[in-house]
Amino acid sequence: MPIAFPADTAPARTKPSNYPEPFASRMAGRVKRPLGDLFGLKNFGVNLTRLEPGAVSALHHVHSRQDEFIYVIEGRPTLVVGAEEMQLAPGMVAGFPSGRAPHHLENRTADDCVVLEIGDRSPDDAVSYPTEDIQAVMDDDRKWRFAHKDGSLYR
Amino acid sequence: MPIAFPADTAPARTKPSNYPEPFASRMAGRVKRPLGDLFGLKNFGVNLTRLEPGAVSALHHVHSRQDEFIYVIEGRPTLVVGAEEMQLAPGMVAGFPSGRAPHHLENRTADDCVVLEIGDRSPDDAVSYPTEDIQAVMDDDRKWRFAHKDGSLYR
Repeated sequence: MPIAFPADTAPARTKPSNYPEPFASRMAGRVKRPLGDLFGLKNFGVNLTRLEPGAVSALHHVHSRQDEFIYVIEGRPTLVVGAEEMQLAPGMVAGFPSGRAPHHLENRTADDCVVLEIGDRSPDDAVSYPTEDIQAVMDDDRKWRFAHKDGSLYR
Repeated sequence: MPIAFPADTAPARTKPSNYPEPFASRMAGRVKRPLGDLFGLKNFGVNLTRLEPGAVSALHHVHSRQDEFIYVIEGRPTLVVGAEEMQLAPGMVAGFPSGRAPHHLENRTADDCVVLEIGDRSPDDAVSYPTEDIQAVMDDDRKWRFAHKDGSLYR
């Protein structure tokens, strides 16, 4: 493998979303290219994420342990943090400390948006989604398990 | 604080380098703007780092625990990894898993280079510098202590 390469030549994830339905379908138009894994990084993940017009980066969510950070490369995605919204532009950054405000991006424009996303891999992470009937817990194999808010698992 | 802002408006580090002399002076022309800290991130750091012509990103080094990743925003820095070299360009990425090959960037061009740098904050990290008489260990307060290779501390 070369010691460096253009981020947009990395392969896209074969499975577009880990969410169960009906949430997975809402991630249409989102393409994630994992970058850190290609270099053997273990402690954090880096994705190059493209959002087509109308696409969102994720459900509105907040992690219990994982910190997250984004850098806008292209386009003008709208960042939603708690009840606040801001339209971003290339060169802008935002960070999301664990356990604070839920957040996600939406592409409300007619052009693609491209964002670099970073998130660490702290053990025992969980994700809550204040606006949806879903919760996520990372199991011992670092795979996400999704449940309804009453605890019953999605199938 | 706003929920997002342009990365290049973040304040630069007041102390340009933590290295002892004669190494600190070799970091002239390097300006780091810590970004993750401004949002309260704890698990990893993100810097926007500008390298003027002739500047380098760091001494040739490798971490024992910390993974690192870079995204080139502007300019054409030369990446040195072990004995390999490659001139990078905007949009290119590289990752440096802990305990593998030493690495650093050099700006051998006549124009500035700007890079986004990410590194996690794994405890008990240490840094080795194969080409220099220096080693670094993170103390319990997460401050770096620098020593000669014989173990005697730099003052």
